[in-house]
Amino acid sequence: MRRKKGLKLNLNELAARLNATLVQDEGNEVIIEGLATLDDALGHNLSFVGSAKLRDKAINSKAGAFLVNYDLQLEGRPCLQVENVWRGVIQTIDIFYPDEKAITGIHPSAVIDPLAKIGRGVHIGPNAVVEKEARIGNDTEIGAQCYVGRAAVIGENTVLYPNVTIQERVIVGSRVILHSGVVLGADGFKYEVIDGLPCKVPQVGIVVIEDEVEIGANTCIDRAFLGETRIGHGTKIDNLVQVGHNCRIGNFNAMAAGVGFSGSVTTGTGCIFWGQAGIREQVTVGDGTIVGGQSGVTGDLPAGAHVFGTPAVPLRDAARQNAALKRLPDLIRRVNKMERKPTK
Amino acid sequence: MRRKKGLKLNLNELAARLNATLVQDEGNEVIIEGLATLDDALGHNLSFVGSAKLRDKAINSKAGAFLVNYDLQLEGRPCLQVENVWRGVIQTIDIFYPDEKAITGIHPSAVIDPLAKIGRGVHIGPNAVVEKEARIGNDTEIGAQCYVGRAAVIGENTVLYPNVTIQERVIVGSRVILHSGVVLGADGFKYEVIDGLPCKVPQVGIVVIEDEVEIGANTCIDRAFLGETRIGHGTKIDNLVQVGHNCRIGNFNAMAAGVGFSGSVTTGTGCIFWGQAGIREQVTVGDGTIVGGQSGVTGDLPAGAHVFGTPAVPLRDAARQNAALKRLPDLIRRVNKMERKPTK
Amino acid sequence: MRRKKGLKLNLNELAARLNATLVQDEGNEVIIEGLATLDDALGHNLSFVGSAKLRDKAINSKAGAFLVNYDLQLEGRPCLQVENVWRGVIQTIDIFYPDEKAITGIHPSAVIDPLAKIGRGVHIGPNAVVEKEARIGNDTEIGAQCYVGRAAVIGENTVLYPNVTIQERVIVGSRVILHSGVVLGADGFKYEVIDGLPCKVPQVGIVVIEDEVEIGANTCIDRAFLGETRIGHGTKIDNLVQVGHNCRIGNFNAMAAGVGFSGSVTTGTGCIFWGQAGIREQVTVGDGTIVGGQSGVTGDLPAGAHVFGTPAVPLRDAARQNAALKRLPDLIRRVNKMERKPTK
Repeated sequence: MRRKKGLKLNLNELAARLNATLVQDEGNEVIIEGLATLDDALGHNLSFVGSAKLRDKAINSKAGAFLVNYDLQLEGRPCLQVENVWRGVIQTIDIFYPDEKAITGIHPSAVIDPLAKIGRGVHIGPNAVVEKEARIGNDTEIGAQCYVGRAAVIGENTVLYPNVTIQERVIVGSRVILHSGVVLGADGFKYEVIDGLPCKVPQVGIVVIEDEVEIGANTCIDRAFLGETRIGHGTKIDNLVQVGHNCRIGNFNAMAAGVGFSGSVTTGTGCIFWGQAGIREQVTVGDGTIVGGQSGVTGDLPAGAHVFGTPAVPLRDAARQNAALKRLPDLIRRVNKMERKPTK
Repeated sequence: MRRKKGLKLNLNELAARLNATLVQDEGNEVIIEGLATLDDALGHNLSFVGSAKLRDKAINSKAGAFLVNYDLQLEGRPCLQVENVWRGVIQTIDIFYPDEKAITGIHPSAVIDPLAKIGRGVHIGPNAVVEKEARIGNDTEIGAQCYVGRAAVIGENTVLYPNVTIQERVIVGSRVILHSGVVLGADGFKYEVIDGLPCKVPQVGIVVIEDEVEIGANTCIDRAFLGETRIGHGTKIDNLVQVGHNCRIGNFNAMAAGVGFSGSVTTGTGCIFWGQAGIREQVTVGDGTIVGGQSGVTGDLPAGAHVFGTPAVPLRDAARQNAALKRLPDLIRRVNKMERKPTK
Repeated sequence: MRRKKGLKLNLNELAARLNATLVQDEGNEVIIEGLATLDDALGHNLSFVGSAKLRDKAINSKAGAFLVNYDLQLEGRPCLQVENVWRGVIQTIDIFYPDEKAITGIHPSAVIDPLAKIGRGVHIGPNAVVEKEARIGNDTEIGAQCYVGRAAVIGENTVLYPNVTIQERVIVGSRVILHSGVVLGADGFKYEVIDGLPCKVPQVGIVVIEDEVEIGANTCIDRAFLGETRIGHGTKIDNLVQVGHNCRIGNFNAMAAGVGFSGSVTTGTGCIFWGQAGIREQVTVGDGTIVGGQSGVTGDLPAGAHVFGTPAVPLRDAARQNAALKRLPDLIRRVNKMERKPTK
């Protein structure tokens, strides 16, 4: 829960809090009450200029003052210069819209099995359910109506928003954020045809979510057939993403909304998957790979690949083919004409 | 909740209720007990003919009678002529399958914070949770197991089906319908790289859902970074749709299932997005734009655009390119042949 | 709930339980404690070789023994030969990781309407809600926080994982598995423009899920406008799938994650839809059709079709066009050159 605090700070006070250098032509007394974008900012707002390209827009903005990098000045407008604008933005939000932890304690309507182990400083919201042998680490928040299955393990300082479902034996690390509607540990999609009929192969593996992962609303991470499905440290996953059974997602990956991973996909460190991309089963993707929006990856990708299209090809090839395709109707006409021309 | 009422009406009675003109050759006494499609209708069903193209199908249908527009007659079959067939269909459903409002009152298992404000005639279902300072307008239904977060505001005559999650400070208008699994106000997907690591930028904005919006099952609308994510009046959103942070969706848009909007997309009035289409961040789309299924919009679109493909191009160009692509393998053979031909 | 049992079996005991033929060169006393893949297996694991191609990988694996088909031997490694490896795998899982049924009975926190009919041996988990006139068959498990709407009917031996939502009048068969977040029976997406504004057409039909269907996490199956939306016997649906109103999905279909069906799609028996495919409304697809990942089907498909691309074309044509597209940039250069050549 973050809410505006009603705080008012003058620029000197704010500069001190942000460890910023105040640059202003005149001694006008701007009072800042919150943060806003260049488009929305009014005189009582601090705004921020993340790129020198936004300089003119900033100068024309109504903001009372601006967070900028040390190398930027906006003539005649008060600036707070910092080393990193985005760190400044985050600090400013923490000042004006502080994060209020949920009240510690277990709501009386929550159903907690007596054999669950609940750490110190834990919040468990109304109508949540925590099953037998589940373990919840210190200072973790379990939102209203969440479900924590039997023998599931959740680390410290982790936040589950309302309506998260964590199935049996799933392991979630510390400082993880799980948004509403997330389902961790549903069965992988695995059938084998026996005697002509599809037979369900029981999924007895687990899901492991490492520390500092964030998972968006209504995203699903399936449990492994055997072994584990693993999401690496610091990986950030948007809403409505599917990660199939036995995937091994590396550290610090980013997946935009609607991405789908089939089973047993392996990714390196720092990969980016843009919206609605899909990855075929068993594929291995190297470090730092970027997969464009709506692309379909059908084979392994080396480290540093940047691909696009279905089936995905290197972005440069995709762009060249796409440009050529636009010229194709005309090309057909030209070839028709050449064929008609008598080669006397 | 809608259920068949067990009502039986003869055609004169039904004509009177629908304000329709009964046209029939003979005085046969058809009794109507419900509505059915041309394929499924039996003698006790009213069916409907939405288009003159369905005339033959209607004449061969077993339906007892037909709703038709004033300009259509079906020889020898009883017809109820109305000004607008679909209005007639909706009225007929309201007659035979009336909408029963949930019983007013708060179920004893619901957990309502004493500082929440609940209007007159509100229904709150079993195991629902309404947090501190939330406000729920008159005659609104909050389904079983719904979550209404702190300081969220919901208008009048709005319906939340079971299992909807509304996070803190989200604003929902009047006569809105939210289907099960909807999540309003999860954090936008926003990280900035600081010192080489992705840092979460706190999302302190809100979501505003204007009046008469409908949102399908398991759809997610993220809260804004700063400011608001807004869904305009009368917009209809299907299941499993993603609307990213700071989008400003216009009035009377329609989004089919699986559509994904990245952050900060702006749309005009009356836009249509067919299934699984995706829109890149920051894009602006003009009034009345139509985006084809699975298309990927990567740049701004003028009013009235009709686009298709990834990256999306005008539908006409996409069709021409696609037709040309089918001829490409043959074109390559023809060019090969021309090259081999000696140009003596 | 499946957990490892802590069982230890020697190969003769295991062979007897699996009705397998033990083939081993020497009398070494391998003790098996569980099942693992070739990659992960250690000396106390049974592994399995589903294909002769994996022979070398198997021989180099650390597994203590191997499930193989009767026609395969791995020199010097103990093998349990069976008629069907996958049946053996499933049986082995059932031995080492037995399925523990949830404890029979209704949790005191569940809210069950007195007019609901609950069969023998039913489990209803904490905070579940079962509405008036709902009927739940014998030995069915309703997970924590599930919602079963008014007059919904659920068969025998069916499992609802936590947080499933079943709306009013939906019919679910026997031996069905519904994963967390599934929504059955939300309204179909149907509006008609009357007097220039989109008007909601009430959806008064139902959903019918036949026996032995499995539906993945956060998947949505919409109720019909009139009549029914039907999922045929034995069909398996993965996570985050959308099935629109009035679809009639045949028996033993398989749909991978992210697939979307518009309204009124009809499919035959044994169709396969790979990840993120989309099917346009009103389309009919014949028996045994295969639709490739991310493909968009825009028209009817005959039995046995195998299609790919958007709009989908026969896989062979798609592959040929795709190969030709890769050569297109070069083709344009060649045609440019031919045009420049003087045809003296």
